[in-house]
Amino acid sequence: MRYRLEGPQMDLFAKTKPVEGTLGSWAERTHGLCAFPKLRGEISNRMSFGGRECVVWSINNYLGLANDPEIRAVDAKAAAEYGLAAPMGSRMMSGESDELEYLEGELADYAGKPAAFFMNFGYPGMSSMIDALAGRHDVIVYDAHCHACIVDGVVLHQGKHFAFPHNDIAALTDLLERVSAQLHPSGGILVVTEGVFGMSGDLGRLDEIVRLKERFDFRLLVDDAHGFGVTGPSGGGTGEHFGVQDGIDLYFGTFAKAGASIGAFVAGASEVVSFLRYNTRSQIFSKGLPMPVVVGNRARLRLMRTRPEAREALWSVAGLLQRELRARGLEVGATQSPVTPVYLDMDTEGAVEFIRRLRDEHGVFASLVTYPVVPRGVTQLRLTPTALHTADDVARTVEAIEKVYFDLVGRA
Amino acid sequence: MRYRLEGPQMDLFAKTKPVEGTLGSWAERTHGLCAFPKLRGEISNRMSFGGRECVVWSINNYLGLANDPEIRAVDAKAAAEYGLAAPMGSRMMSGESDELEYLEGELADYAGKPAAFFMNFGYPGMSSMIDALAGRHDVIVYDAHCHACIVDGVVLHQGKHFAFPHNDIAALTDLLERVSAQLHPSGGILVVTEGVFGMSGDLGRLDEIVRLKERFDFRLLVDDAHGFGVTGPSGGGTGEHFGVQDGIDLYFGTFAKAGASIGAFVAGASEVVSFLRYNTRSQIFSKGLPMPVVVGNRARLRLMRTRPEAREALWSVAGLLQRELRARGLEVGATQSPVTPVYLDMDTEGAVEFIRRLRDEHGVFASLVTYPVVPRGVTQLRLTPTALHTADDVARTVEAIEKVYFDLVGRA
Repeated sequence: MRYRLEGPQMDLFAKTKPVEGTLGSWAERTHGLCAFPKLRGEISNRMSFGGRECVVWSINNYLGLANDPEIRAVDAKAAAEYGLAAPMGSRMMSGESDELEYLEGELADYAGKPAAFFMNFGYPGMSSMIDALAGRHDVIVYDAHCHACIVDGVVLHQGKHFAFPHNDIAALTDLLERVSAQLHPSGGILVVTEGVFGMSGDLGRLDEIVRLKERFDFRLLVDDAHGFGVTGPSGGGTGEHFGVQDGIDLYFGTFAKAGASIGAFVAGASEVVSFLRYNTRSQIFSKGLPMPVVVGNRARLRLMRTRPEAREALWSVAGLLQRELRARGLEVGATQSPVTPVYLDMDTEGAVEFIRRLRDEHGVFASLVTYPVVPRGVTQLRLTPTALHTADDVARTVEAIEKVYFDLVGRA
Repeated sequence: MRYRLEGPQMDLFAKTKPVEGTLGSWAERTHGLCAFPKLRGEISNRMSFGGRECVVWSINNYLGLANDPEIRAVDAKAAAEYGLAAPMGSRMMSGESDELEYLEGELADYAGKPAAFFMNFGYPGMSSMIDALAGRHDVIVYDAHCHACIVDGVVLHQGKHFAFPHNDIAALTDLLERVSAQLHPSGGILVVTEGVFGMSGDLGRLDEIVRLKERFDFRLLVDDAHGFGVTGPSGGGTGEHFGVQDGIDLYFGTFAKAGASIGAFVAGASEVVSFLRYNTRSQIFSKGLPMPVVVGNRARLRLMRTRPEAREALWSVAGLLQRELRARGLEVGATQSPVTPVYLDMDTEGAVEFIRRLRDEHGVFASLVTYPVVPRGVTQLRLTPTALHTADDVARTVEAIEKVYFDLVGRA
């Protein structure tokens, strides 16, 4: 007997054929422009795109560390000393080192926690960590705007999970009441939110969420990928900003943004961190990062802590950019961080034209963000200011955005 | 109203407190020995552990590329040229480069496929790719011994999934009959297996599975992490070995083993690869690898293709090691690859003592593998020979294993 049916519906790959009008087909048509663009030159506020120098707002080099001479020297020296292959196994199997332990100690110290666990990448680290923490009877409650890696962690979870509307503390409170009342006797509650939401730039209401611990038993995991090194008086993150770091049970940060590298970490109580070290599947079952990255991250962390002037420059540029955009009638929403959205009242076709003209006519490189990175129906620019951007960069950019945008949509 | 109940059952973190007798507590007691050991010195067949030189069998440096002078020179030069920060975003947003495209072209060529997609890490790449490929009505059928990253991909999948007993083609056939007959009209079937199973060393029966395509409609995804660069006449992998590469729809490999680096790739039809580029969440939502890793991977790939003598040395050492172990009455199972298990008839306590004596008394460093890395009830060593190991390494190791093992368990 043969089980082959006729027609494309039996082919798993039918879905890979671009269908006119879908995001896939749109993306294909703008490949290299809005998706997978090639920026050339050293990471900085000015890079080359399509042969033209642009002011670049699409790189998460918040503190300008990527090409800091001290960092470049450390990177080069470590790569010469260790090569990029070592270690050659997972940390658990054969990849542990003193350097990793030193880095973890320094991360714990900066995060104000007893211990930290350094992971090879943020995305699988976060997803697997949630999976490890939440057992069958545990319930996960998370902000609806949480990053994809958190959502995937929730999907991996075999028990109940509920999203609350973005930053809606009344809704979270209602949810906690309901979940607490129905909780399995051996279950616990994990609340997950972010410090800085990476697309909208507003902060998770960590102070209010921590205050809910007076009424409810839950553990709080905060993804502060965009806050680590950026928010708080010492750059210690959004928990430090709100003065509630002690109420955050697990503080998660990454080197992929302000840290100008790769790798992520979670900081918390020693016993919990140790549990995660032994139970986070994506880390047990995959290779540790190359030694030069670990050495380089220690150097980056040192500069994050000892260069408040970089953080001040970042916030100063961000403030200027956001004020100027608002002053010209552009919609930047409720951002409270350097993350600077510009919400666009145009369809995707128009937005692509907008991007093209910003680059071609004004040398301004910004990224367009649409679903699924942001909620359905939202089309926005995301501008990422850094400590390296100048007042001149801001002026040129704001002028270009104002001109091209209103040229396309007209003044209200 | 307060929703706080009494007792540890309400604390999500209760599970993190070590319970006597569990793997967690065992792991804690052997921290630094069986888990998270620190190997010092350059990656090679001889490294230092606890101040003593050991023959090391715990690193996946199959072809000996990790410290090849040519590779070390490329790594050092690329890190000096680019630093370790660039690019500073996801490939889709701002991290694309010519080097990435060249690497992908070379990978596609080596894999004998029209296109390849390079991903920042194998674990999240594989999990997310499965999630992207398999929609709600699709069914995933996978080998029960597949790697954790595949299992997590299956868990992310919202539709039906079935495991077949390891390499049991009759059971797979039955399953395909049942699944095909009940398939949703708009659903397809994804079969997932491995080229080389990383713990047992046997090969997936790719020839027999590909032959099943004559009877059933499915797409085949093969994880060849341990086969890429190792199996097949030109190191092209386990599909090449069986002469069925064309029957593999998606060929997945990693640089973490023979490639002596990090990063992974999937190769297949252009349209499918393009679909994955735009739909693999872990890649859309996380940073691309540092440029020197991409440059270094191109150099590694070149050596993988042009140094058959490294592959020959690897297979020669592996053959010798396995013959010698078998000759002394040790159980290496059904391995068909360099991966060399030694199955132990002892409890965990005994196995830890075994490992300790191998290292302390004989300078032989091997890894102990237990659940959840291998099925429950299995305790094994996993020895990973490389092109750098010598006949002397093998003799010393086999002698030590024989002596200590039978000293502990007695001769049957």
